[in-house]
Amino acid sequence: MYKAPVEEIAFTLKHVAGMGEAMSSGLFGDLGEDLVEAILSEAGRFATEEVAPLAEIGDRQGARLVDGEVRLPDGWRDLYRNWIAGGWNGLTAPEAFGGQALPDMLNVAALEMWNSGSMAFALAPTLTMGAIEAVYTHGSAALKETYLEKMVSGEWTGTMNLTEPHAGSDLGALKARAERRPDGSYRIFGQKIFITWGEHDAADNIIHLVLARLPDAPAGTRGISLFLVPKFLVNDDGSLGPRNDLFCHSLEHKLGIHGSPTCTMIYGDGRFGGDKGAIGWVVGEENKGLACMFTMMNNARLAVGMQGVAIAEAATQKALAYAKERTQGRAPGSTGAGMSPIIDHPDIARTLLTMKALTQGSRAISYACAHAIDMSRRAGEASRHWQERAALLTPIAKSFSTDAGVEVASLGIQVHGGMGFIEETGAARYLRDARIAPIYEGTNGIQAIDLVTRKLPLSGGDQVMGFIGELKAIAEAVGRSNLDGFGETAARLAVAIADLDAATAWLLAALADGRAAEALAGATPYQRLFGLVLTGCYLAKGALAEGGDGKGGGRIALCRFAAENLLAETAALRDRVVNGAASLAAARILLA
Amino acid sequence: MYKAPVEEIAFTLKHVAGMGEAMSSGLFGDLGEDLVEAILSEAGRFATEEVAPLAEIGDRQGARLVDGEVRLPDGWRDLYRNWIAGGWNGLTAPEAFGGQALPDMLNVAALEMWNSGSMAFALAPTLTMGAIEAVYTHGSAALKETYLEKMVSGEWTGTMNLTEPHAGSDLGALKARAERRPDGSYRIFGQKIFITWGEHDAADNIIHLVLARLPDAPAGTRGISLFLVPKFLVNDDGSLGPRNDLFCHSLEHKLGIHGSPTCTMIYGDGRFGGDKGAIGWVVGEENKGLACMFTMMNNARLAVGMQGVAIAEAATQKALAYAKERTQGRAPGSTGAGMSPIIDHPDIARTLLTMKALTQGSRAISYACAHAIDMSRRAGEASRHWQERAALLTPIAKSFSTDAGVEVASLGIQVHGGMGFIEETGAARYLRDARIAPIYEGTNGIQAIDLVTRKLPLSGGDQVMGFIGELKAIAEAVGRSNLDGFGETAARLAVAIADLDAATAWLLAALADGRAAEALAGATPYQRLFGLVLTGCYLAKGALAEGGDGKGGGRIALCRFAAENLLAETAALRDRVVNGAASLAAARILLA
Repeated sequence: MYKAPVEEIAFTLKHVAGMGEAMSSGLFGDLGEDLVEAILSEAGRFATEEVAPLAEIGDRQGARLVDGEVRLPDGWRDLYRNWIAGGWNGLTAPEAFGGQALPDMLNVAALEMWNSGSMAFALAPTLTMGAIEAVYTHGSAALKETYLEKMVSGEWTGTMNLTEPHAGSDLGALKARAERRPDGSYRIFGQKIFITWGEHDAADNIIHLVLARLPDAPAGTRGISLFLVPKFLVNDDGSLGPRNDLFCHSLEHKLGIHGSPTCTMIYGDGRFGGDKGAIGWVVGEENKGLACMFTMMNNARLAVGMQGVAIAEAATQKALAYAKERTQGRAPGSTGAGMSPIIDHPDIARTLLTMKALTQGSRAISYACAHAIDMSRRAGEASRHWQERAALLTPIAKSFSTDAGVEVASLGIQVHGGMGFIEETGAARYLRDARIAPIYEGTNGIQAIDLVTRKLPLSGGDQVMGFIGELKAIAEAVGRSNLDGFGETAARLAVAIADLDAATAWLLAALADGRAAEALAGATPYQRLFGLVLTGCYLAKGALAEGGDGKGGGRIALCRFAAENLLAETAALRDRVVNGAASLAAARILLA
Repeated sequence: MYKAPVEEIAFTLKHVAGMGEAMSSGLFGDLGEDLVEAILSEAGRFATEEVAPLAEIGDRQGARLVDGEVRLPDGWRDLYRNWIAGGWNGLTAPEAFGGQALPDMLNVAALEMWNSGSMAFALAPTLTMGAIEAVYTHGSAALKETYLEKMVSGEWTGTMNLTEPHAGSDLGALKARAERRPDGSYRIFGQKIFITWGEHDAADNIIHLVLARLPDAPAGTRGISLFLVPKFLVNDDGSLGPRNDLFCHSLEHKLGIHGSPTCTMIYGDGRFGGDKGAIGWVVGEENKGLACMFTMMNNARLAVGMQGVAIAEAATQKALAYAKERTQGRAPGSTGAGMSPIIDHPDIARTLLTMKALTQGSRAISYACAHAIDMSRRAGEASRHWQERAALLTPIAKSFSTDAGVEVASLGIQVHGGMGFIEETGAARYLRDARIAPIYEGTNGIQAIDLVTRKLPLSGGDQVMGFIGELKAIAEAVGRSNLDGFGETAARLAVAIADLDAATAWLLAALADGRAAEALAGATPYQRLFGLVLTGCYLAKGALAEGGDGKGGGRIALCRFAAENLLAETAALRDRVVNGAASLAAARILLA
């Protein structure tokens, strides 16, 4: 059973991701170590004791559509109620609407733990938090007044309605339409698919944020507007009014996250009588809906990255426990009488260490991304730098962590042998749940396009090159350290960073030359290359902070394992970026 | 929907895996091209038109245990009856018992197609064929006389009963017991788990091969005997007699292969009255059960490898079709008006080409393994050489193909985007089904141990070094060829083969020095290294055979893509083998 790794999380926040410096320089206000520890401990307790025990029933029962209503799995309604009663929904939300305005880093750490407990459950607050951010940043005063407090408390949940059957990655193709009404409201019509927690029975109201097109809107993404469309209209006194013209038509039958209702939503078909059209209000300006979406995209993508970290952590814990207990065969060097615990077999040890390194690496990348988001809001003149850093880290955090979630969950099944394939064991659920994360909120291929074409050119390439410079400093610090046990780490890191450096320079040159197809051919290998290098460097940063006194988490040993067993892949990845495009282009005849 | 790639399969058999030479040198008797083509075409038709359409219902309904009887999914009983009516079960079986004694290569190619159609369905004949081989090779004349004809026709199916809760990879730990009876029969008692097709309603009888221990047996694997234990006893006239004392206690609830009943079998609890103990007969000698198992292990492991190839092929076909049809965004260089087919986006093209290369590579490796098995039975003085070659290739075929099955199926989901996560799309089933193949019939970690510790030392290392020499000759032939389009293939292959060469030499030296733990630490990376090199070399062999006339399958382009985009990984894998053990050993403190 999952146990929240509170100490590991606290260490990574403080020593690797930058929370320590931010706190000591006063950027996080009067937030003290005691409060951080208290929040993490209590979040960990809730995730471990309340959320995780309900994950399996959520998977088995799934969300069910009964007579047009969505029923959550047994116990989930109370779980959600208890969760909001703990005040968790408003951790980072503005104080004016009842939130605690704490740094995103803390929220992301807590999100990791909710997701480890049950990814399907944690999706509800993930979506609500995104909706809060969109309304707070772009909504009118009236919208904020009417909706935010209940959303911050979690009494009302939020959704994002983007996808339509023919518009997934390409939002420009969407067809949902909106009509202006004289009273300043709008009527929304259309069908949206894949709407997470689009309907359920745990909250009194559901606030849908819906992308749609006005009749006179320009074609493509410049003609999209964002609307707030509540399930129940809200009276002037704040009480709930009549049902709005929208409903959940069906639920998807999915590979994983069964407890999370994935809804097809129908807007404006007049099912509840009266005039057709779901009543909504524009969020931000007309035709600027995509800009509103982009505001929250960093956070939403990072939140999905946390799902990858979370599954990797939970799957690693499970595999580790099994490998210590299960005995088979005799490991080399075994001196005992009977069979060895399988953890003593070198191949199993390699697998588990790989799982640990990927988990801790993706955690550090994701927390560093959250740190950059926090800094972008608090660092004064340096805000723009941190905004760029957050923008640069976001696609890497999203893609590397979600790929790690799938890979680690799959390795976790393998460690369990035949038992891993049996659903009751629980290892398979991690793979089923994890598999969506590289897809939604922008597929990892889309992340790679974003990384290469939009993020590398930030500040003319200075942002990424400056970051690489910081990574070199970490490798040099390892080289200067007198800590035992680093082995070849310093040299390995230096080579890996040089691979990143070379691939980055090549891509920037290709983009400058207008060779977009060549650059894009290597986008996914480049994205992984970046994530691997960051994994090595962040593990090293943690190892340097922990030191070599033998206490602590064995960080030097894990860092060395990653440096000497995982990082050599960077050469192949650089090669694919720099040399791969020609053969890819030539082989397209096979795809005709 | 899957369509059997009959031409691709025939080409690979003939030009890559060695069937062409074997036929022209008369080793396959009077087997002619026409017959090969007819068999492959008809097998392909049956897999495409009869098996594949019933895969989804098999997945959805699964096998069900009702009142102690296992009911197959709707339509599967008739499907099985039609399949045996086609004579497919006896393709390679001995003619004396009604088989056709055709080469294993053909059977393996057909198995690929059945498995692409439905892996859960194809497991039934896979197990029966293994049981036929064990009885034919080791059984007494009386056992053969009584059982083989019906097993060869498929009227009776076969099973392998190895695993017990505490004995999976380690068969020495098994506890099922056998007692001798004065009439020469035995009584079997015990529980077996994970018994594939252990009970079902499609065959008149089920012949269980069961590993158990005699009371006076030595401890460990030297005290295991193999018994034939029929579900229904067989009368002297060949008619079915009373029910034997064994039954299916429960079915597993699994991640995939839902249509295949995975049974817990109970032997000897007296449920059907009379004396307790399931009646059985020893196959081979007492206490030599493991040797009997080893006889069929090459074939069984290769058969599981075919499942990997099969899923990879089916998943690739599905993703390719979707990527041609689905439009999103504008690909670089797109000149059309609307959205581009996603196949035009470089990242999707890279994904699909990777899927194709892994599929064709694992197919070629597996067919080459089947070729070696065939040659080991027909090549006269060279039989021992081919036996070693088969032994060497088996763990690679099993592990590389099953890993490819999982990887390609997962990539296939990714190509489908959000639709890939929806069960009705069918892409997710491939991943769920594929995930067992790296586990059963010896986990891929066990395959790696086998490859390094038992197969590399064959003929004092001469077998593997001779094989590497053959691979070098392929790389040199690419270098000498005047065929356009090979790009850097020759140089890339040479480097990859040099990596394999160096890693092999290092492992042989480590084994000779008694550094088993160090050698085993790199066993899995080495196994993948070998598979990748073989992929490159076999794609090159096919490309050389096809030539560069622009007709055919674009093999030169695919080979170049693999050489320039996939093979660079070999340097990292060699590095892990040669340099990875120290940091792995040091990091074990993390696993305490």
